[in-house]
Amino acid sequence: MNPSTPLYLDDLQPGQRFASPASFTLDEASIKSFAARFDPQPFHLDDAAAQASIFAGLSASGWHTAAITMRLLVTGGLPFASGLIGLGGEIAWPRPTRPGDTLRVESEILDVRPSRSKPHQGIVTVKNTTLNQHGEPVQVFTSKILVFRRPASAATL
Amino acid sequence: MNPSTPLYLDDLQPGQRFASPASFTLDEASIKSFAARFDPQPFHLDDAAAQASIFAGLSASGWHTAAITMRLLVTGGLPFASGLIGLGGEIAWPRPTRPGDTLRVESEILDVRPSRSKPHQGIVTVKNTTLNQHGEPVQVFTSKILVFRRPASAATL
Repeated sequence: MNPSTPLYLDDLQPGQRFASPASFTLDEASIKSFAARFDPQPFHLDDAAAQASIFAGLSASGWHTAAITMRLLVTGGLPFASGLIGLGGEIAWPRPTRPGDTLRVESEILDVRPSRSKPHQGIVTVKNTTLNQHGEPVQVFTSKILVFRRPASAATL
Repeated sequence: MNPSTPLYLDDLQPGQRFASPASFTLDEASIKSFAARFDPQPFHLDDAAAQASIFAGLSASGWHTAAITMRLLVTGGLPFASGLIGLGGEIAWPRPTRPGDTLRVESEILDVRPSRSKPHQGIVTVKNTTLNQHGEPVQVFTSKILVFRRPASAATL
């Protein structure tokens, strides 16, 4: 469950789970407009081409799914006080995202690694699973995030 | 060097290199509008907050860099005849992308693995390095892409 106040490195430990408070519904127009700008391939732009493709119907760019996932994480899904500063990670798209799909994200802390050289920060590994309205994963992103310790001035709050 | 005709699985082998024929220049307005939609964090939206952050100035969302990279790959950077159907991969953002940066992509085939069960397709591992105008990597994405064999009807062309 998500905490009532944002979390610092000090507060995080493996096994903690979070869920995006919001969800995000994709429509056909936004799938096509994102694709036109960033992933102009026929199966993301044209219904007939999409039907004839391996996707057997219109699907969103994986990068659109990734961007929506980030929005869900930033707007409360991963309540880190120092923000979500991603260093990178491993991403997979096990199935397409379709027009009308409603996405949400579930996250789990896998690892918390304080920096040896910079004592005020650390790297947290988080597995973020983006699910559609059927509970099927459409993206799994295991991310490495730079997280800061609670500032001294906030220590006694 | 990029070929004059798009490539099928049959044509690919480790060590082949490609370069995006186009480049893409980011401006401050597009950084802020992408971030407002998908990554609304102060250091991607507000100049003063960005200056005070670990980025020491406005920077693009990593997902914006990823989306632009995809555009550069789809528009000739990776000339695969069956398109760029990404299954996933490993992504890293070694440094921020800034307003005014001009991005291009260099790609190298690392592995070509024909499917055992589906003889007309295979999985190709490609390392895509996105570089700024100083030749510095801003993203490294080692992707797994589903690639098809040349159709029988095209075999004698």
